[in-house]
Amino acid sequence: MSADAAATPAARAADLLQSTRAHAPLVHAITNSVVTGFTANVLLALGAAPAMVDIPDEAGPFARIAGGVLVNLGTPTAEQRAAAREAVEAATEAGTPWVLDPVAVGALPVRTALAHELVAARPTVIRGNASEILAVAGAGAGGRGVDSTDDPESALPAARDLAVRTGGVVAVSGPVDVLTDGVRVVRASNGHPLLTRVTGGGCALGAVMAAFLAAAPEGTEPLDAVVAAVTTYNLAAEDAAGIARGPGSFAVAFLDALAAVEPGEVAARGVIA
Amino acid sequence: MSADAAATPAARAADLLQSTRAHAPLVHAITNSVVTGFTANVLLALGAAPAMVDIPDEAGPFARIAGGVLVNLGTPTAEQRAAAREAVEAATEAGTPWVLDPVAVGALPVRTALAHELVAARPTVIRGNASEILAVAGAGAGGRGVDSTDDPESALPAARDLAVRTGGVVAVSGPVDVLTDGVRVVRASNGHPLLTRVTGGGCALGAVMAAFLAAAPEGTEPLDAVVAAVTTYNLAAEDAAGIARGPGSFAVAFLDALAAVEPGEVAARGVIA
Amino acid sequence: MSADAAATPAARAADLLQSTRAHAPLVHAITNSVVTGFTANVLLALGAAPAMVDIPDEAGPFARIAGGVLVNLGTPTAEQRAAAREAVEAATEAGTPWVLDPVAVGALPVRTALAHELVAARPTVIRGNASEILAVAGAGAGGRGVDSTDDPESALPAARDLAVRTGGVVAVSGPVDVLTDGVRVVRASNGHPLLTRVTGGGCALGAVMAAFLAAAPEGTEPLDAVVAAVTTYNLAAEDAAGIARGPGSFAVAFLDALAAVEPGEVAARGVIA
Repeated sequence: MSADAAATPAARAADLLQSTRAHAPLVHAITNSVVTGFTANVLLALGAAPAMVDIPDEAGPFARIAGGVLVNLGTPTAEQRAAAREAVEAATEAGTPWVLDPVAVGALPVRTALAHELVAARPTVIRGNASEILAVAGAGAGGRGVDSTDDPESALPAARDLAVRTGGVVAVSGPVDVLTDGVRVVRASNGHPLLTRVTGGGCALGAVMAAFLAAAPEGTEPLDAVVAAVTTYNLAAEDAAGIARGPGSFAVAFLDALAAVEPGEVAARGVIA
Repeated sequence: MSADAAATPAARAADLLQSTRAHAPLVHAITNSVVTGFTANVLLALGAAPAMVDIPDEAGPFARIAGGVLVNLGTPTAEQRAAAREAVEAATEAGTPWVLDPVAVGALPVRTALAHELVAARPTVIRGNASEILAVAGAGAGGRGVDSTDDPESALPAARDLAVRTGGVVAVSGPVDVLTDGVRVVRASNGHPLLTRVTGGGCALGAVMAAFLAAAPEGTEPLDAVVAAVTTYNLAAEDAAGIARGPGSFAVAFLDALAAVEPGEVAARGVIA
Repeated sequence: MSADAAATPAARAADLLQSTRAHAPLVHAITNSVVTGFTANVLLALGAAPAMVDIPDEAGPFARIAGGVLVNLGTPTAEQRAAAREAVEAATEAGTPWVLDPVAVGALPVRTALAHELVAARPTVIRGNASEILAVAGAGAGGRGVDSTDDPESALPAARDLAVRTGGVVAVSGPVDVLTDGVRVVRASNGHPLLTRVTGGGCALGAVMAAFLAAAPEGTEPLDAVVAAVTTYNLAAEDAAGIARGPGSFAVAFLDALAAVEPGEVAARGVIA
């Protein structure tokens, strides 16, 4: 990021949106059965190419040709667990960025064991709410399923430790998103609460992070790509909230807004500190 | 329900919607792959918290912490069948209300066998169309998949017998929904045919019943909670039909309407006899 | 088609839409987890009855009572693969038309092996983009997952050979769809690029083809039923694009338009050569 080091964080995010649109990155998403359709539509709206390849013997080969990989543990069937392990091994070998979304870890034993195993494989990004990040870091018991019962700021020490341990980025979602690579801490403040009333509102963001990482120019710091993904996504939520009549029309308007949001708007309206 | 015994059925339903909104119950849904996203969005619009935990070794523990459980047999993979058995056992032990939706039983052998097994575990509610209820009760051959080829009223004797046998509620969907706990019979007449043109229009109602049961005050009769769920749901359908241009915009408007419908409207417009 | 042989292709397509609406055919869809909900909603909007029965021991019996079957290989779990084999065997025995959609074959070994096996069972229709058709025909390596990197016209020789080999129809999607039964070649030119920004935009068309085949009068040539399906579907896309503000509202308007499109519009606006 040497050339852009003097630019504002929002201007850097704008450039990274531009890059994502220009490259139409292929995103390999292994995700839960509740949000597959919404996640694919979010990626298509953004201008990325989604592919959900989640069976053994295919997930490994596909992760080698994808630009970025998402592993979301929301409904981890046996085949998905095997596929996730394959995809992570292949992504690691190929140097492909990958995002781990440890949905509802803590209380639920199968996904919690897998999450710890995958964290040891050093994800490029771990994305979750505060309860999930605390549970993955070994510092909390997790929330009641998909909800977070903890504040993002309260998870920052655990997030920072986790980032140091993995050498990656940890992104804690909340009213203000807190993101860290273990050294820098960034707070991204755009967004709208209606996003929490749409299933996949959080999960699809993990796929968008993978898209931004896949399309970022050589040398981009992963934290900057993740911040750009969060800010673009949350600005689309703000635009959608302006015309929505409820959670149903919000989800529709969100996809429209994500397809329409311009780098100039990210530069002008992004609140990143 | 002693204090409310003098209230009208619609006023009781309004109180139960109020209670559901106030408690944001955690609903554990094991449901078919076609409707997972829509079901989660329906629960979120209502103000409940959905979680689709449908693998063995997780479904049992999760059913213990959920407020209500849905078991829908629409696409019963081997893992879902094991998860359903676990969840039902845990719900039974914990005294958690659970709803069985025996989608397309009768002609299809795997789900039919499981449905009979789960009926023997005495669901709090069995929800289905007339053909499904007749098949579960052993009084009919089932319809052609998801369609009902029978009239709800024609299924009433079988529904009543089934309710007596399980000690639970049986809800038969149709233009007028017929609901019984084996003693009382209630007819709920709100709704709109466009609901049958949206996939999950019936399936998601099972999850809403679980939400109302989870949030109902101690001592509420399950039949009243189920009638409240049906009436709230169907009033949202009426509101949505008023602005929809077809089945696509109806589904969107339905989620908006479900988030917006007020207890006062349920009291004023609910048609329950 | 003797009586209609003198009619224009668009007029024949209009008659076949009329027939599909009149018969409300039962379509058995074994399809990928990303598009199940959208596919069911597309079938419901069209006036067909969808059922996603995709487990072993049920898929075979159900294919015997369905009017048409879709086998889409987008996320082929082990259970779905077994179900697909069962359904194809039953459909073949019962003389039920079935559509194969070999999503992303070529690079991915599990689905590619299954696609070759199913092609040998002689599908009524094979539907795919140019890269997929080339891969299934043994004439190409496939695209990068869901994208096509080849032009439909360039796949025509392979499509024609494949049609001769299977005795069925091969439909190559693209800006202009190219369809052949090995003898005739038809180009269908309606449609809108926004359809490629909605997940399931291609996959759901396979289910619509199965619906048209199921409802077509005795003696209809399968190629005519498939052309009618494509043209009806693409006209709805044109109508939706006229009011959409982006890919989210397009998907909603598309379902509305598919429910509303009249045979007279197909006759007047269908571009088939």
